[in-house]
This record gives sequence, structure tokens and C-alpha cells, in this order.
Amino acid sequence: VSRVRAEIIAVGTELLLGQTVNTNAAYLATRLAEKGVDVFRHTAVGDNLERAAAVFAQALRRADLIIATGGLGTTEDDLSRDAAALALGIPLVHSAGAELQVRAFFERRGLTWTDVQFRQCMVPSGGHPLPNPCGTAPGILCEGQAGRPTVILLPGPPIEMRAVFDAHVLPWLEGRAGDVIIKSRKVNLCGISEPAVEAAVLDLIRAGRNPTIAPLAHGGQVTLRATVKASTTAEADAALDRAEAAIRERLGAFVFGVDEATLEEAIVTRMKDRGHTVTVAESCTGGLLCGRLTSVPGSSAVFPWGVVVYSNRSKVELAGVAEGTLEVNGAVSERSARELAEGVRARAGATFGIGVTGIAGPGGATATKPIGLAHLAVAGPGGTRHERHVFAGARSHIRHRIVWQALVMLWREVGGAP
Amino acid sequence: VSRVRAEIIAVGTELLLGQTVNTNAAYLATRLAEKGVDVFRHTAVGDNLERAAAVFAQALRRADLIIATGGLGTTEDDLSRDAAALALGIPLVHSAGAELQVRAFFERRGLTWTDVQFRQCMVPSGGHPLPNPCGTAPGILCEGQAGRPTVILLPGPPIEMRAVFDAHVLPWLEGRAGDVIIKSRKVNLCGISEPAVEAAVLDLIRAGRNPTIAPLAHGGQVTLRATVKASTTAEADAALDRAEAAIRERLGAFVFGVDEATLEEAIVTRMKDRGHTVTVAESCTGGLLCGRLTSVPGSSAVFPWGVVVYSNRSKVELAGVAEGTLEVNGAVSERSARELAEGVRARAGATFGIGVTGIAGPGGATATKPIGLAHLAVAGPGGTRHERHVFAGARSHIRHRIVWQALVMLWREVGGAP
Repeated sequence: VSRVRAEIIAVGTELLLGQTVNTNAAYLATRLAEKGVDVFRHTAVGDNLERAAAVFAQALRRADLIIATGGLGTTEDDLSRDAAALALGIPLVHSAGAELQVRAFFERRGLTWTDVQFRQCMVPSGGHPLPNPCGTAPGILCEGQAGRPTVILLPGPPIEMRAVFDAHVLPWLEGRAGDVIIKSRKVNLCGISEPAVEAAVLDLIRAGRNPTIAPLAHGGQVTLRATVKASTTAEADAALDRAEAAIRERLGAFVFGVDEATLEEAIVTRMKDRGHTVTVAESCTGGLLCGRLTSVPGSSAVFPWGVVVYSNRSKVELAGVAEGTLEVNGAVSERSARELAEGVRARAGATFGIGVTGIAGPGGATATKPIGLAHLAVAGPGGTRHERHVFAGARSHIRHRIVWQALVMLWREVGGAP
Repeated sequence: VSRVRAEIIAVGTELLLGQTVNTNAAYLATRLAEKGVDVFRHTAVGDNLERAAAVFAQALRRADLIIATGGLGTTEDDLSRDAAALALGIPLVHSAGAELQVRAFFERRGLTWTDVQFRQCMVPSGGHPLPNPCGTAPGILCEGQAGRPTVILLPGPPIEMRAVFDAHVLPWLEGRAGDVIIKSRKVNLCGISEPAVEAAVLDLIRAGRNPTIAPLAHGGQVTLRATVKASTTAEADAALDRAEAAIRERLGAFVFGVDEATLEEAIVTRMKDRGHTVTVAESCTGGLLCGRLTSVPGSSAVFPWGVVVYSNRSKVELAGVAEGTLEVNGAVSERSARELAEGVRARAGATFGIGVTGIAGPGGATATKPIGLAHLAVAGPGGTRHERHVFAGARSHIRHRIVWQALVMLWREVGGAP
């Protein structure tokens, strides 16, 4: 099997004006890499027949496979069909199959047919319509004969594009896949800084190209992404297993999951296994810590309730902070955080209680308490642990960083990160 | 002033593998459109000298201005400088100015200089380094002489790219701007469906091109985006004012803000003006409603506290729901929602109380209570209003839709949407 050389084209003036981010290209690129297809270029071009046709024509000279997104609607501006046909040098023709698909969609949704819909029933001569379960525009597969390139047109809305690609293009690619596939795995760490992670695996990062290992940091989480080239999925998975094992050998204590696994999922799973529960009293994070814990399906088994204690009175009445603590130490203090955590733990009869207080900004700073200051406490069977942090950035970023840090502290208490 | 024709190039294999989404292109495209620069093409290409140089060479034949992002790091894979020089047919040379900038950055951050850094001090001969406040790689401006195109190289990380572009490229563009600028404004609506919005302004949508009006819907919010072409910013703003006025004439009662304004900001501002307060008892949304209200700086003036009542016991103890209600009607019921809202309103002595209960899924559905079912209630001086909804989608989507609907109900109570 020879390598398939592909290009991805997006058609739409909204992309050139910056009104839309081209997420379709990243999605297609990931799936194609996993199938061993080499993507050499992404291009975005506007709703202009001449320029769009030129982009198709140039790609046809370089690539074996061209996948284009967008421009399959019903208006005059939707001209991907026309541009592809022009570049291929073949006419656009009415497709009875496409009309059946579009009419079936209209029937399912109870929509009223209008003749503008006929535009979506046209395909470059010889092209096959690809059913779209989520929208009116079928995709189109123009399979290249006698070694000529194949052109695939997909609808622009990401939900429709993915549905058509997954159902009809991926199976078509099977058997046409290249001899080298590319696959990635993310290993997610917490409770350790990005420089410390990088230092621990610097030799792996520098070692070279298969696998390549690259660190990413976002909102407190550090991720190491391993990417391998292999000739089969099984071989790629085995190489990724080895890369993950090598990372875990150095940093295993900090690893909480792989790929899309979240820290809150790891926490809820661990707590369920142990029959533990947690309750929360949060101030500056305003409900986001509770929101993150309860984002996990089944979290009701470990989370009975939480309180968002913005006012001083609520800190006293709902979480049991002593009035004297607020007067003497202030709401944003180690003492307050400890009393919040211990107060809600006692009231809920929970295994753990978390107290969070801080200054998210942009207002509220004092001479001794800067914006970004946070006091966090986790009360548990072994006592109460406290941390003080000062995070930088905008209100939203500070709130998310504090939530993350509270999760890291809870993860430690349930036997996760050291 | 003649029109500037621009192309945007992104260099990086991570883009071709789908590991990174090209958000830089959208950012640059928006800023360039606002300056009257026509962008005709976006291209992404990998870290390959020959292919990257070919992309630059092709763009040089078509465009007056080429802005490239990425490939300015210190490794051999970072070859935007080399590719641009090759395509321009001029050598790469050491820039004393670039070295000063890189060394100054190292000094500010207390980093240790290593000789690999010299790679970032090279520029195509005649190019000027553009200081990067957020990273080591300076941008590079290669100004075209005698009508030749200008090439600008910017770092790949979005924070660095934006910092260099805003500080150094935007001022350079002033005076070189085109004779037609493109600018957009978003008018944000709530409490009305997308089809209803579309029907109300269908003639405006169909009327044509200046302004163009396009509807967008996301998570319950409907936005109408007006885009105008004009010869000056003042003229564009005036046309956008007229477009906004035309939309408000039809739909003003549903408009809560423009551009990046959020519904929670509108609510908090309105409540502050009126001296109103609100408290929350939320179950299935798990803290996200409180989190959204408290995302607004200064929300402490209107939000004393909220409770996340996941367990039945907490609904009784923290929000005053009658035990009989839970037994007879169940936790997810109109009666429960009303008692949650009225219970926390009374306990807080607040102007309004919100009660939210529902089934976010994927588990928890019963024969009569499907996934996505939500009962919402807002208690206020004029009594308690209740709504029942069934939202579709995944857990996260359902939770966000319920939060949005609660905000819409509160907005109505404070005199917003009808």
C-alpha cells in the first residue's frame, strides 16, 4: 500500500473574516493521521468561485485525497460543488440519490420542501452522495479513477461534518490506509509543575522522534503527549503503552489518568471505591468546585451537598465559621478556610470537607491580601491540611486555578498524588 | 490607498496532525478585516523546509502582505525564518537587535542563556525584530521594498502571537489600511427561539450584503451578527448602530446585550441598580448556576449565598423542602422546585430565590421522568413562577441548558425579557 497524500480545504468567507475558527481541520487531521494518511496542507478560502476552484486545482496537482468542508448549503454563496467540478473539469449533474436523501431528511423532520433544495441534489458527474443524518446537505464522494485524486466534500457545521465523515468516509478509507499511522496518547498529571515534569522526562523528550513526547500545561494540569508512528493500530498502541509506562516509571505518583480522563473523575471513582464522601464550602470560587465534582455521572454517591458562602453571615450560619475568626483573621485567611472545611465536614458527617476562600479580583485586594490570594483547606479523618496560594491572571482564570488546586488537595487525601 | 491583499500562513506539523486548532488564523483574520485588509487565504503547512518555502513562495506571488505564525522556536524543526528567507531569495543573518531583545527577556525572567538561543536572533536580511513581551522568540517584519510584498513572522503560542501583533503589527498597519474595512457586532437575545428570531428579521437577513445579518444559536442564547463594510471605522460603527437599532426595533424586548456581554452581567447590573438580591438552591446543576452568577465581578452585592443540594436530606435541611414533598412528588417535581426557591428565599431574606431540580443523566431516568427533565422555580415579591423543560443532549449540555434557563427566568423577574 502506498502512502496517501491528503490536503484539507475549508470553504467559507466567515473563516477568512475570523468569525469562525476552523475546528473541522483539526478533527479531520487527527482521524486521517490515525488512518495513516499524510496531510500536507490545510487551506481556507472564501466563497468565491474562481479562488475556491484555484485552491482545488492546486491541491489536485499535489494530493491523492482532498477533503473539503463547507459550502454545501442552498445559497449562491455555497459553491464547493461548483468549485470542485470546475477544478476536476467535469459538469455538475442532478443526483437522484442525493434528492432521495435530502427528501428523506425533510420528511423525518417534518420540514416543507422548497425548490432551493435542488441545489443540494447536484454532484460533480460520477460523484456519490453521502447521507447526512444531522442536516440537509449530503456529503459527496468523487472517487478518482485510474490513479487520479479523490475529492470528498463534507458539510461545514462540525456536527454534520463529523457525522458524515465517521459514517461514510472512515469506512471508505479502510483498506486504503497508508503504511504508517500516527497516534497520540495524553498522560495527565497533577500536583507537579510543568518544569518539574519536563526535567523528569527531558531525556525522553530529547530522545527523538518515535515516540515524540511533548509537555502541555493548562490551568494547573500538566499533560505529556506521546505521539508514535507505526504500521498498524496494534503496533501504535503497543508503542504508546511503552511510552506511557516509561512516563509512569518516573512520574507515576502524579499521573491521574490518560487522554480525556479528568481529575474529578479520578477522585469520584476512588472515593466511590472507598465509600468516602466529601462536602464543600466555597466562597471565591462561587460554586465552580461543586460544579466540577458534580460534572461526573454518579457523583451523588460521594457528594451530598455543598454551600456557596459569599457573605460573611453565610460563612457563619451555613458553614459554622466563628464570628470572631472573620473579625480577627478576615474571611480570606487560613483560619477561615480551616473552619469552613471542618464546619461543613461536621455538618454533613462526611469523610472530607473542603473550605475555599480567596480574592478572585478584579476588586477586593488589600495591602496584605493581593488579588489571586487563596486559602484552601481539606478536613479529613487525619486532620486538616491547609495551603496558601497566590495565582495570577484574570478573575475567571484565578477561579479555575483555585478549583483545580482544591481538587489536587482532595486527590492527595484520597491517596492520589503524593 | 489601494486594497491590501493578505494571506495567513501557519507553520507546524502539530496543526497537520490535528493536535492543535489554528485559533491564530481567526484572531489575525478578525483584526485584519477591521483594518480593511482583505484576507484571501489561510494555509497551514508542516515543519518541512521545502513545503513551507513553497507555501511562502506561492503566497508571495498573490499577496501584498503575508503573516505567518509558528516555527520561531529554537529547534531544527522551527524553520519559518529559513522558509521565508528561501522564498524571498535573501539570506538569513544575525540581528544584533533580535539578540538584545532575547537577552533582555532572559534577564527579566532570570533564565540562563544557552547558545541554541542564537537561532532566535536570525532574521531574513533587512528584517526587523519585533519585541515579544511574553516569550523568547521575537517576531520579524520584512518590509517589502518597491511594491514587493511584506512578510511578517509571529510566534506560534497564541498569547505571544497576540502580544506581538497588537503591539507592533497593528500600529504598522495604520496608514497602510485598505479603503474598505469590515466590522461585526453581535446582538445577544434570550427567552426566544432561533426560528422565532429568524422569522422576525428574515427581511433583514435576506436584504443583502451591507450589513449582512446572520443568526447564531448556542446553549439557549441566540445571537444576531451584523457585519458591515465601510471606508472608515466611524462609518462602520454608524452602520452597525443602524443595524442594531433595526434589530432592537423588532426584538428589543429580548436583547440583553451586545458583543461579549453575558446574561449574568446584565442580571447583576440590573439587580444592583434596584438593590435586589438572589439566592439559589440547585440540585442537578450542581453549583454551576451559582458559579455563573458569581462570575460577574461585584456579584457579592446581589448574591449572599447558595446551596448545592444533591441529597434529599440536604434539600430538607438546607433549603426547607418538606419531607412529604420528596416522598409524594419526588425530588424532581414542580412542588420540589417551588419549595427550594421559596425555602432559600425565606432563609436568606433575599428578593428572589431560585430552585433547580432535574435529571442531567446519563442515569436516573424513570418511566415518567426522562433524562433532561428540569423543574425550575423563581420565587419573588410577586409570587413563584415555575417552568418545566426537557432538554436533549449529554449531561454537560443538559446542565448548561438548565442553568441558562434559570438565568432567563431571573432576567424576566428583574424586568428583562418579557
